[in-house]
Formats: sequence, C-alpha cells, structure tokens
Amino acid sequence: MIKDGERILLMSEDGDEFITVVKDGEKFVTHLGGVEFEKIMKLDFGDFVETSKGERLYILKPTIVEEILNLKRKTQIVYPKDLGYILLKLDVKPGDRVIDVGIGSGVVSFAMARIVGEKGKVYAYEKREDFIERAKENLRNWGVIDLVEIKHKDLSEGVDEKEIDAFFLDVPKPWLYIDKVWEALKGGGRFAAVVPTTNQVQEVLNALKDSHFKKIEVVENLFRFYKPVPQRLRPYDRMVAHTAYMIFAVKVYQ
Amino acid sequence: MIKDGERILLMSEDGDEFITVVKDGEKFVTHLGGVEFEKIMKLDFGDFVETSKGERLYILKPTIVEEILNLKRKTQIVYPKDLGYILLKLDVKPGDRVIDVGIGSGVVSFAMARIVGEKGKVYAYEKREDFIERAKENLRNWGVIDLVEIKHKDLSEGVDEKEIDAFFLDVPKPWLYIDKVWEALKGGGRFAAVVPTTNQVQEVLNALKDSHFKKIEVVENLFRFYKPVPQRLRPYDRMVAHTAYMIFAVKVYQ
Amino acid sequence: MIKDGERILLMSEDGDEFITVVKDGEKFVTHLGGVEFEKIMKLDFGDFVETSKGERLYILKPTIVEEILNLKRKTQIVYPKDLGYILLKLDVKPGDRVIDVGIGSGVVSFAMARIVGEKGKVYAYEKREDFIERAKENLRNWGVIDLVEIKHKDLSEGVDEKEIDAFFLDVPKPWLYIDKVWEALKGGGRFAAVVPTTNQVQEVLNALKDSHFKKIEVVENLFRFYKPVPQRLRPYDRMVAHTAYMIFAVKVYQ
Amino acid sequence: MIKDGERILLMSEDGDEFITVVKDGEKFVTHLGGVEFEKIMKLDFGDFVETSKGERLYILKPTIVEEILNLKRKTQIVYPKDLGYILLKLDVKPGDRVIDVGIGSGVVSFAMARIVGEKGKVYAYEKREDFIERAKENLRNWGVIDLVEIKHKDLSEGVDEKEIDAFFLDVPKPWLYIDKVWEALKGGGRFAAVVPTTNQVQEVLNALKDSHFKKIEVVENLFRFYKPVPQRLRPYDRMVAHTAYMIFAVKVYQ
Repeated sequence: MIKDGERILLMSEDGDEFITVVKDGEKFVTHLGGVEFEKIMKLDFGDFVETSKGERLYILKPTIVEEILNLKRKTQIVYPKDLGYILLKLDVKPGDRVIDVGIGSGVVSFAMARIVGEKGKVYAYEKREDFIERAKENLRNWGVIDLVEIKHKDLSEGVDEKEIDAFFLDVPKPWLYIDKVWEALKGGGRFAAVVPTTNQVQEVLNALKDSHFKKIEVVENLFRFYKPVPQRLRPYDRMVAHTAYMIFAVKVYQ
Repeated sequence: MIKDGERILLMSEDGDEFITVVKDGEKFVTHLGGVEFEKIMKLDFGDFVETSKGERLYILKPTIVEEILNLKRKTQIVYPKDLGYILLKLDVKPGDRVIDVGIGSGVVSFAMARIVGEKGKVYAYEKREDFIERAKENLRNWGVIDLVEIKHKDLSEGVDEKEIDAFFLDVPKPWLYIDKVWEALKGGGRFAAVVPTTNQVQEVLNALKDSHFKKIEVVENLFRFYKPVPQRLRPYDRMVAHTAYMIFAVKVYQ
Repeated sequence: MIKDGERILLMSEDGDEFITVVKDGEKFVTHLGGVEFEKIMKLDFGDFVETSKGERLYILKPTIVEEILNLKRKTQIVYPKDLGYILLKLDVKPGDRVIDVGIGSGVVSFAMARIVGEKGKVYAYEKREDFIERAKENLRNWGVIDLVEIKHKDLSEGVDEKEIDAFFLDVPKPWLYIDKVWEALKGGGRFAAVVPTTNQVQEVLNALKDSHFKKIEVVENLFRFYKPVPQRLRPYDRMVAHTAYMIFAVKVYQ
Repeated sequence: MIKDGERILLMSEDGDEFITVVKDGEKFVTHLGGVEFEKIMKLDFGDFVETSKGERLYILKPTIVEEILNLKRKTQIVYPKDLGYILLKLDVKPGDRVIDVGIGSGVVSFAMARIVGEKGKVYAYEKREDFIERAKENLRNWGVIDLVEIKHKDLSEGVDEKEIDAFFLDVPKPWLYIDKVWEALKGGGRFAAVVPTTNQVQEVLNALKDSHFKKIEVVENLFRFYKPVPQRLRPYDRMVAHTAYMIFAVKVYQ
C-alpha cells in the first residue's frame, strides 16, 4: 500500500510523467484531470488510478533516471546516458569518499551518495548560493541529504579533503583546477570531468599533461532510441546529438 | 602500503594493464620484465615500480571497468558502456533484491551486488555449469561472492523469488521468459534485457506487449573515444559499432 | 548580372532561405520585407540586396542540396546525406540508362538526370498521379525534365527497359519487386533501395538472397552538424537520428 | 562480351575484389588461383569464371566506390562516405569549372571530372611530384585524364583561375589559403574542405570568418554497416569512427 508522504511517479498511458508526494486529504491535479491521494493510498506500486477525466495513471516509485529527467530545470545536469558510465569509471562503491564540483541540481551527488552509503561521504562544492538551495531541496526529496556535505566555496580556494577516492568536476573552466584535483585525490584516485566543447577538451588535456595524471581518456556517446513497434522497428527520427565530452584520468606519483 | 593478498592493477607507460594479486615472496612476470611483489609491498597505490627490463608499472586498485575489460574471456559480457546505463535504469540501490540471468562472467552480478550491499541480494540464474564456475571465481576475486546467490537452473523452470525490484535478462531467447520476469517482479519493478540483433528486439517487443509491461524503451549507444592529444584532438580511427540493443520496461497491473 | 527568369536562392543573415524565380516588374515579399526583382537584376550572384525592412538577402544560385531541403513537402524524399552516397554506389555517370522508382518529389531523378546527361536517360516509374504532377513541376524547375521519362505505372506490371545500368528503388514494399529489378538490370548492374524499418531490411535481404544478387550491403549513416563557432566548437544539441537504411547489390548470372 | 583492354573487377564468393585490365593472351593470378583472360573475353559482365583452384570470380565493371576502396595506398584519400555528400554540396554539374587541391590519389578529381564532362574542367593543384605521378596514372586508368588539368604548384603561389564554380581543399593547413579560395571562386561559388582534427576545424572557421564567406557548415558522418543476414540483422561489430570533418561555405560580396 502506498503510504502518506511517499514519493511517487504517476505515468499516463501516453507516457506523461509526474513526480509528486502523497499528501493524505489532498488532491493531485494535472491537465489529465484530478485524483485524490486517498484513492492512491488504497493501492500498490504498479496499480493505476483513474483521474476525474477518466485517464489512467500508473503509480510507480521514481527511479533515479526518472528523477533526473523530470527535474524542472534541466540545464546544467549530467544526463543519465553519461552519468551511468561516469559512476563506473570513477568506481564509486560503498564506503568511498568522493567529491562533486559544482553540485548543480545535485544529480551527481545523489547518484554517488546512494552508492557510497553511510560509511562513505560525498563532498559537494558549489560557489553559487542559488544552486546550493536547489540542490539541497532535491537531495532532501531524494533522501540522501545526510550523505552529502555541501560546501559553499569556490574551487580556487582549494579543497579541504585529502585521500579522496574519486573526483567529479563539472565547472566552466575545469582546466584551472586540475592541480587542486590532484592534491585532493589519493594515489590511484580517479578523476572525471564533463565539458561541452572541443576547445575545453583541449584545455583540460593540456592541464592533465602538466600534472601527474595517467590513463587519460576522452569519450562521447550517442544514445539512439528506437520506436518500440515490433513490426516497424526503427530509430526515432531525431536524437540528442551531444551533451558533453567525458574526460577521465587517474592520479599517480612520479 | 600495498598489502599481501591485495588485488592490484599494474599499468605500463604504454597502457598495458595486468590485474594480479600480491603474493609476498613471489614475482610478477610479463613481457615487460619481472618485478618482486616484495618491492610492490613497500609502495602505495599511485606509485610505480620498475621491472627487470626497466619498464615503469604504475600500481592501481582495479576499477570495475578495468576488471571487466581485463577479463580473459570477453565474449558474452555486458560492456561498461551499456552496464552503467542499465544500472541506472534498473534503479539498483542499497537493499534491493535483484535478479541477473544468465550470469555469464558475473559482470552484471558484480556491479549489482556492490550496490545492493548486505541488506540486499542478487539472485543469479545460469544453466551452464562451466559459466557458473567461472562466475564464482570472478565474484570471489571481486569480493562480492557472499552477496550473490547463484542458482544452477534454467529460467524455463521458473523463478523462486517474488517481489523482486529489478530483473536483468541476458539470454539467447529472452522473449520466452517475459512471463516469468513479470511474475518475479514486484509492482512497478524494472526490467532490462540486452540482445544483439534487431530480430531479437522485435521478438522481445512482441512478448512485452502481450504481458503487462509499460514504458517499453529500446536504445543503443555508440561510444566514441578520442585521441587525447590537445593539439590534434580527433576521434580514434575505429570504434565499436555495436554490442547490444538494450530494452527496458516496468511491470504494472491491469 | 542576374537575368529575368533565373532561378535564385535568397539567403538572409540568419540563414533563412527562399528559392524563387526572377520576374521583371514584380516584387519578392517575405516576413523579412519586400524587394523588387528589378533591383536584383542589377546585381550578380554573391551580391546582396536590402529588403524594405533593411534585411540583407544574399543572392545565390540554388544547389541541388538547397533545392531538396527547400522543397515544400519534405516527406518521402531521399535526403542529401543518403543521396550522395547512393549516386556513387550506383556509379551513375554520363551516358548511363537508369531507373528511379517511385519518383516521389523527383529528387533522385533530378540528381541522376543531371549526371547521365543527354546521352543517358532516367526512366522514372510512379503509380500515384499526384506525385507525378509534383515531380514534373519540380523537374521542370530544375531544368532536367527532358532527361527523365516518367511512366505512370505500378512496378508490379513490369519494367519496359532492359540492360539498365542502375536501379533505384524507393517504394513501401521493395521486396515484392526484386525479380523485376533483376530482369531490368544488365549483368553487373547496380541496385540500391532505401527503407525506413529494420523489418523491411530483413524482407529485402530475403528477397535478394532468393535472386541472383551479390555484394549485398546494408548501411545507415548518421550526420552530425557542428556549431561553426571556433572558440566553442561542438555538435548541435540535436540531430537527425534516422532517415533510411540503404541496401545495395549487384546483378550477376549463375 | 568483355573486350581486350577493358578495366574489370573480379569478385570472389567471399568478397575478395581485384581490379585489373583484360590482356588477351595473358593470365590473371591471385591466391584464389589463376584464370586466362581469353576465358573472360568469352563472357559478359555479371558472368563468372572459375579459377584453376575452382573458385568463382564474378566479372564486374568497377564503380567509382570500388576504384577508391581498391586503391593500393588508401592514406590521404577522401572516402566515398564523405565524397558523395561533398559532390552534392559543391553542386558539381556538367559544364562546371572546379578546383581540387591537393590532388592526392586523384579520387576527388576523378569524381568531379566525370560529372563536369567535356564542357567543364577540373583544375587540380599539387605540390608533391610523387603524388602527381600517382594521380596521373589513376586518372588515366579511370579514363578522365583529359578532363583534369594538373598543376605542379603550391597554393601559396596563388591560383591561376577565376570565376570558379566550386573549390575543394584537402591540404594540411587549409586555413592559410582561404583568401586564395575566395579570389578564385565566382560570386556564390561553393567551398568545401576536409580536415581530420577539431583544432584544424577551429582554424578554418577562424579563417572563414575573416573572409567574406557565408553559410558556414561543419559536419561529420558516421557510416554503420550491417551484416546482411535477414534472420540476424545487426551492425557489424566495428566501424570507422572518423575520417574527416567536412566544412562548407559560399563566397559572397560585402
């Protein structure tokens, strides 16, 4: 049974998605009609309710991908297509101490926090206060606020932590901070950055070569979705052509 | 300091990689020369040793990506480029109970186990005994053997578990088992399958439409690596064109 | 000097494009303002005119790519990204006798006609009269109407020509006509088809294997455009993910 | 009937291809066995001969794509996947006067010459004498030597022609010659260049913006071939990830 206060995703037959929180006594309203939360609280995940307009809404527990794609401000987020690979490359695992700069909407911190768990820690740096507020709200909604230590601080002021397992860098000029990243990481610690332009990739590569980083990799990915029609299987007409170039490296001593 | 029994990755300046286990008193030998483990045990991760032939080997802790790519038998593995996204789509998180069929080299079970942790469980089905032996050895090496319950069983005999959070299916004819997947999943539970051919995608889509699955998605991704040379930034000449189509869905009630 | 009756393309600073024909005494009007053709007739290609709203319009001779992309009805056209490769694969050259079925907007017939020239011939089959009318108008505008023999005929009724150099097939069920294609082609003659779905590719491949065709190839291409900004070089956010699968083969005797 | 002196392509059942010239009285020998040209001269295109080892060789007339892909030195060629689109974008048509720099193997000059025909002309610049010799031999083999005027000259010395319809530039530092290109082109004339690295794209874009060029486009394409097996349709495992970035522009007056 769905409980009061539970975070749920309502999905229509046409694929519209709404993430909300169950509030006993209140009503959920969209252009597809309204539905009382009371009604939802008599159901389980996987069930559907009908709205006042007769539309079916399936009740799902939102996944991390759904949380990301349903964020109101989607600018400056790391997309699931990139995020999954970054988490693997950074080898984020329970107990790890990791850094996420800048926090943006909190998407990367969320994904990391969920994995490192209570024995680990995510340190998130952000210089813009409005971003911090937004990220805090998101992390609270996602239930990981206690696993993330948010710092209102510009990376140029340095990093407080040492012996960090993995460092994720998503700032406009990442090449300026490669030395700070190196100092914060432990030996063999993993680094990842995302940048949108080839010029930025070139700058980061230059900075990495001046530091003691090895195993420098640059990669981009193209995700292509197909219309799920068995008799006419084909890609959708259009796709995302570009989000970011991903850059990876590992800290070594020389 | 690197300890006796520790699993390490040795990486040469040219990018050769060797995963091995530190054995005090013994020696590690490759075409790049030999090195005593004793020497390694005086160093830390990120340091390098020199082999008898004067080659530098950096000592790293192998990441999950490196473990996968350094497997001796690379056939029938799920590649990191797909795996990262699958884990996000399946929303694998601490405490989840998930199913992985067939286990193959154990790559997916490893990735899942590490995240679900001790409060969760991975149930892995496999009908081929030789695969089970290989997967067990890998999972032992990767330190997650206790988090995975391996079952020597064909999926056609049914699934023992109920109320499963996520189901990953990587078998030659996945469309034959869509009903078993549905039964094992809890309401709102997530499904993922990988298949190499378009014909198989068509079959799976047909089977999913006959079942109560929603939010059916088919996607493939193209990863393109760049030569990390800042003055001549360009993709490598060749790339992997195809590993598998990924198919996702969610169980609902009707 | 631009002449009366000349076909021109007017391009704004923002990249808006308009293809029109110079009509002395008349006026060209768009949302960017109006301009008298008289004014244009005092200029040369590469010059610009200013509209009544002060907008610059550069005067260009439309290329085949611009003609295609500025067609009003863009459905059922072969896109330049595919067309260029098809012409090469079919080895269309001066003097060739080639077939184009169905003619659609006439884009492929145009491209072929321009190359085969007066010593060659394009035979275009089309069963829909409205398509024929549209194609005729386009081919007249493009100045190649005399090089194309249009036949109002369904391919199932057979092909009148023999010893054809190259055959282009763009119909909903191309697999039904593979034997007609084989009969029309000369030995070593080249075949190309485009189909949007994987199911259709499978059908065509089956039909080709039943016929005496060799060197069967299936290919798709992904064109990715970049923002032409030197300091921030990166792909555009979105791209065309799919137009058609191209299938090629050569007729042999057995 | 295949004639003495005819240029033919012999293709084995396994897809091996050999381009050769029929020499009456002589023999064609490969690892698949030998075959007398006399035997071939009794056959037609599309027929097959059997070699001394019992291997079938189909006799085909080589297409431009086959000529390119069967060149011995494949470095520094423009690949068919790019060439087809470039020809369309440059709007090469009968009667055009076009420039190709540097000539390399002669592939682009070949493709252009065949289309512009006797009423047009291809001017090909090349500073390396060894390239000129190779290109001449190729163009002679391809039957278009009389349509191409080859100049042993560095572009920095300037271009002799004026009012050129289209200019193709494939040199290591194309940005150095953008002003020469502009001078040679007629108003509205089309420009295309290919460069392998992002840095070169950036340089060319800078140079184009300093000149009077408009409609600047940068594009790359990814060609993906499929295994032509109807019951297991899927892309080949590996593909070409990169050949070159294509840059296009049009000359205007300001």
